[in-house]
Amino acid sequence: MTKNRNLVNETIQQVENYIQQNELMIGDKLPIEKELAEIFGVGRSTLREAVKILVYSNVLEVKQGSGTFVKNGSIGEFSTTDLLRARSMIESQAIVLAAMYRTDKDMLRLKEVLFQRNRLLEAGNFSEYIEADLAFHQQIVAMSQNPFLIKWYNELLPDIKLHLSQQVLRMEDYQDNTSLHNTIYRALLEGKAEEAQAMVQKNIFTDEEDEIG
Amino acid sequence: MTKNRNLVNETIQQVENYIQQNELMIGDKLPIEKELAEIFGVGRSTLREAVKILVYSNVLEVKQGSGTFVKNGSIGEFSTTDLLRARSMIESQAIVLAAMYRTDKDMLRLKEVLFQRNRLLEAGNFSEYIEADLAFHQQIVAMSQNPFLIKWYNELLPDIKLHLSQQVLRMEDYQDNTSLHNTIYRALLEGKAEEAQAMVQKNIFTDEEDEIG
Repeated sequence: MTKNRNLVNETIQQVENYIQQNELMIGDKLPIEKELAEIFGVGRSTLREAVKILVYSNVLEVKQGSGTFVKNGSIGEFSTTDLLRARSMIESQAIVLAAMYRTDKDMLRLKEVLFQRNRLLEAGNFSEYIEADLAFHQQIVAMSQNPFLIKWYNELLPDIKLHLSQQVLRMEDYQDNTSLHNTIYRALLEGKAEEAQAMVQKNIFTDEEDEIG
Repeated sequence: MTKNRNLVNETIQQVENYIQQNELMIGDKLPIEKELAEIFGVGRSTLREAVKILVYSNVLEVKQGSGTFVKNGSIGEFSTTDLLRARSMIESQAIVLAAMYRTDKDMLRLKEVLFQRNRLLEAGNFSEYIEADLAFHQQIVAMSQNPFLIKWYNELLPDIKLHLSQQVLRMEDYQDNTSLHNTIYRALLEGKAEEAQAMVQKNIFTDEEDEIG
């Protein structure tokens, strides 16, 4: 973990502690950015990054022009298990097809997205990291060339984003899957569909007890 | 193949020959039921059954009050390969979850649907057979208890129905998968998820060259 990443993580924790200690309820407003940055003793850009992750995670809500508010913090209308199973099903199928249809152009684009993902994580730029991580997986699904898989994966994306943000929030537990992502890329490059598939499943069920065949 | 089944099949073929020999185009009207039954020398219930299958298959269209017309006969907006891959993906995942969550009540209902499916096929009651066959697979997906799988499978159903109808139309090639369906049921009953999964995939890719891992 880089210093920057630790700093954003600590700030996220501080915001959550602040909400708890001040007994803020859903709908309650937080102090303005400048004030919060002073309370926590962090720079405004660090605070802004922490707030972004908390918004992705449904913990906070920013209403343009009126401020930042406490939100319910719950994942969509489905259970995490249902979501991860559906995600794993699509990605597992997509990567086999992606290995069949991959072109040099596809693989170059995937490499770029992967590089960006890893760089953003390293820099502790979490909100952009989350976007880049999802772009990596979305690119693999697109490479399957199956319109059903592409459509359904798009439907899942908001919930996947929420879940990933919540994982990032659980700092202690959050596993850095960078090497796993590099392995997925390499296996796909070499057309090793089964290996890539196993890694995709491992990536999704990291931190989760539930796994399916 | 029962006698009844052969008769409906032959009538389907006769209707298709009639369209070809009379050079009927999309939108052209067919003679009335009574007249067609006389031309082909079959009973009206046999003709009605043949027309039903041809409607399911997009070959004919019945406009209430004005008659039966030639339609384009093409499958939805997606390729058959895309459709079968998406179908196989959902059913393969669903049956593993169905094996985990199955209850006595589920299995009894599945047995009833299976019995009905087999009976209708044996009787050559094709249009109802198609409905019962789909109900069997839909019941397994429902048993997965995963809202994503259930929703997506429902989206696929019209195209699966069209494809199945077209398979039934290709009489010579049409494989009677009854014993395969009985095996799926038994494997599920005994909780043999992997075996059931393999049979599900075999059922979908029967007649198709393409198969995926």
